Amino acid sequence: MNGAQSLVQTLVDAGVTVCFTNPGTSEMHFVAALDDNPEMRCVLGLFEGVVSGAADGYARMADRPAATLLHLGPGLGNALANLHNAKRAHTPMVNIVGDHATYHSHFDAPLTSDVEGVARPMSHWLRRSRYAAEVARDGAEAVCAAMSAPGQIATLVLPADTAWDEAPGPAAPLPVPARATPQPEAIEAARAALASGEPCVLLMNGQALRAPALAQAARVAETSGARLFHDTFVSRLTRGPGLPAPERLPYFGEQALEALEGTAHLILVGTRPPVSFFAYPDKPSSLVPEGCTVHSLVGVEGDALAALTALADALNAPASVNPVQPPRPEVPGPGPLTPATIAASLGVLMPENAIVVDEAATSGFALPGATAGSPTHDWLALTGGAIGQGLPTAVGAAVACPDRKVLCMQADGSAMYTVQALWTMAREKLDVVTVIFSNRKYAILQVEFMRVGAHNPGPKAMSMLDLSNPDIDWVAMAKAMGVEAERVDEATAFHAALARAIASPGPRLIEAVI
Amino acid sequence: MNGAQSLVQTLVDAGVTVCFTNPGTSEMHFVAALDDNPEMRCVLGLFEGVVSGAADGYARMADRPAATLLHLGPGLGNALANLHNAKRAHTPMVNIVGDHATYHSHFDAPLTSDVEGVARPMSHWLRRSRYAAEVARDGAEAVCAAMSAPGQIATLVLPADTAWDEAPGPAAPLPVPARATPQPEAIEAARAALASGEPCVLLMNGQALRAPALAQAARVAETSGARLFHDTFVSRLTRGPGLPAPERLPYFGEQALEALEGTAHLILVGTRPPVSFFAYPDKPSSLVPEGCTVHSLVGVEGDALAALTALADALNAPASVNPVQPPRPEVPGPGPLTPATIAASLGVLMPENAIVVDEAATSGFALPGATAGSPTHDWLALTGGAIGQGLPTAVGAAVACPDRKVLCMQADGSAMYTVQALWTMAREKLDVVTVIFSNRKYAILQVEFMRVGAHNPGPKAMSMLDLSNPDIDWVAMAKAMGVEAERVDEATAFHAALARAIASPGPRLIEAVI
Repeated sequence: MNGAQSLVQTLVDAGVTVCFTNPGTSEMHFVAALDDNPEMRCVLGLFEGVVSGAADGYARMADRPAATLLHLGPGLGNALANLHNAKRAHTPMVNIVGDHATYHSHFDAPLTSDVEGVARPMSHWLRRSRYAAEVARDGAEAVCAAMSAPGQIATLVLPADTAWDEAPGPAAPLPVPARATPQPEAIEAARAALASGEPCVLLMNGQALRAPALAQAARVAETSGARLFHDTFVSRLTRGPGLPAPERLPYFGEQALEALEGTAHLILVGTRPPVSFFAYPDKPSSLVPEGCTVHSLVGVEGDALAALTALADALNAPASVNPVQPPRPEVPGPGPLTPATIAASLGVLMPENAIVVDEAATSGFALPGATAGSPTHDWLALTGGAIGQGLPTAVGAAVACPDRKVLCMQADGSAMYTVQALWTMAREKLDVVTVIFSNRKYAILQVEFMRVGAHNPGPKAMSMLDLSNPDIDWVAMAKAMGVEAERVDEATAFHAALARAIASPGPRLIEAVI
Repeated sequence: MNGAQSLVQTLVDAGVTVCFTNPGTSEMHFVAALDDNPEMRCVLGLFEGVVSGAADGYARMADRPAATLLHLGPGLGNALANLHNAKRAHTPMVNIVGDHATYHSHFDAPLTSDVEGVARPMSHWLRRSRYAAEVARDGAEAVCAAMSAPGQIATLVLPADTAWDEAPGPAAPLPVPARATPQPEAIEAARAALASGEPCVLLMNGQALRAPALAQAARVAETSGARLFHDTFVSRLTRGPGLPAPERLPYFGEQALEALEGTAHLILVGTRPPVSFFAYPDKPSSLVPEGCTVHSLVGVEGDALAALTALADALNAPASVNPVQPPRPEVPGPGPLTPATIAASLGVLMPENAIVVDEAATSGFALPGATAGSPTHDWLALTGGAIGQGLPTAVGAAVACPDRKVLCMQADGSAMYTVQALWTMAREKLDVVTVIFSNRKYAILQVEFMRVGAHNPGPKAMSMLDLSNPDIDWVAMAKAMGVEAERVDEATAFHAALARAIASPGPRLIEAVI
């Protein structure tokens, strides 16, 4: 058994059974070891941003890490943007980054770079294996680090000779520390705030947005009258009948402050105080209303379910409540295709147990409201703002949940960053329906250009914010990578196309020209 | 005038008149400043790897840096792979990386990351502007650093408020230090070696591969009998009538050692001792033959033209020599399309003053030989081994040299990493003919899998090294991004298609199924 084989078996033994790969020469022994191990599934991405984004989507749905396989510093560099998103989502992930053999590095061959330097900004845990005999132990520690609360990015640099040299065997899985138990003082402070009669908001993310925790949050809200919000961008939010529907904190700071206006107590559950996504001249960075007291019920690393349960119990809330779900929207009639009609179609047609991947950007504002009445589904959002996350996350979610339909709501500009994900959808026959919101511009930047107080954009600035000239032909793009596709630009035609796509297994793409 | 305007004017004043951009919200004032300045050309890339690769290709041809505009840590992360290649090519480049406003960073908004940490591994010079009043000076220093020998990557982090706050005005360009003059001892050592009667090789890269230096190398070779080689991957090599044709050092170590076998003196001119691209079990990392003495005539940062001139003079070489150019190849006859027939067609059809961008990988081995008899052209190669460099470099070369035809010889697997470059070719109507070598596999990895001594690949390993299932439809891919394309799989049909493409202005793509 060589080092690579000992590592793959260690990963499998620790529950890591999917590897998203984009290997190179220095990873060939690891590829051979993957090949040897029938319990490890390998999924090829044609670009590393697909690989890291897929590992993010996989772990958000599977609640255990996938491995990635990346090629030296530049391959890791290509993965960084979606590692950033995964880090912000508190996604567990184990990156295996091949590097030159230990004795080859000092020759400074063309692909030599500071791999740890590239990894560090987006990794919580980082190690370079020194000997084949240590690789298995390093792998076990990497998985443990990845699975430690709140979920971490673990990066293991694997020099080629540590993969090919002889190794004693796999290492046993390490025990993962339990999530931090809630602090009684924090529960009492939140209880007192909720009992004060003053306006209260619970702002939630992470584990607080899973069904069991949401059921407890509903008890708190019903008893106290507190309003429930979730962060603008959620790692995973379960929605549907029987669950409360927290409001989405608006993206733009002014709107967020308006939504929170008058709040006397902001109680954080698995998140941090809200801040403006960007700074703007003469606008506040903090989105905590003036005079509002902030309480942290439980941090991102804590046990949100236990904390919310304890809080509800402390409030003497009824054992369970049954929030009223809003109705599904009307079927859109004939007319122009708009983000609102697309959202309505999604709300009407969403099947039971769907997974919605939301990188719809400016085109997606109507989506949460229109789908509030849909059957049970999970919602995955762009947590770190590094665009190009939607298509890869859909890949990973579909690999994790082969029995669930994935609906990828995807802005066109963002889609281009990791468009290679379509090929992986085709190869793996993943059950993903991708809707491309084809507005042919970086619409958010056209808004932001004005919001930051730059003057009216001239033609040169506009051309930097515009995706026309030429228009991207998304049907040809999908066809190029083996995904069936159609283009629609009218509301009822879109509705019919979405119904057809949802009814068909395997990947489909709809270019929605809006 | 704000900080952004002062920076753009400083760049223009220092000769940086092209900015390859992929901006976000934090860069909107810089976009506005670009818009204001009629001397700055802006070219949008739909992914940051296109932006950095284009800046590399531009500077290799223009001999002055382009600027890039990138969006925080993740945007810079997406650019890293081609920054690595540019760093290895000693390409001058100025990266402007927007970041949150100085006072916003501590709020740790979702897009916050360690921008300097991401930049450091691929930057020679790195600075964060602190105040708007310093931005212009920082920009002038960045350009100076970029242009300092041998050519450097300069990265300037620009917090949003340093762009939008008031600034006093542009900074004057700084004097760029001259290249280091050759050391008399180094020239004498090389002369003595060449006069020894023992077998000598000059191994060259960088400035030594431009026409004036090559003419001097030809004098040295003719007088001394030394053989001329260039590194496997060249930043820019000028070829054609009247110039010597250095041999390409083979990619695989065994072949490189064989090519250099018997060499008593290896004289380095603008490069470093040859090393194996990767380590392999039981194969040497150094490619210097045993018993061979290595001399450095001039380092990468030195004046290769002056050094070669002094060396030729010291050898009392004739004032000029006129190397015999090999004949052009035969027009390929009917038959299967192969890398060899493609190379022959390129050799026959290459127009005067073409620029060849070579990321053909395993399909490109025949290209240098078949084009040795072609009219004058420049050759740009994948210097850092980070694939996905070809299409973006072609973009940049075409922007730098609008009157020259760019011929991009591109492997299919590598093309996928930065395929978005096709869109920029279409938007800017760049005169680029792209030939996709469509072998539908990572052929190099299938070779390397065996070479590293892994066992015969099983089906799972093979599927990680294979691009079929589904095949990529490159005609649809090009069409998706507005580039005219056709598919050929026969030698005479390819020849005709290449002739048509070369005769047509603007971007064209040929999928060569091999």
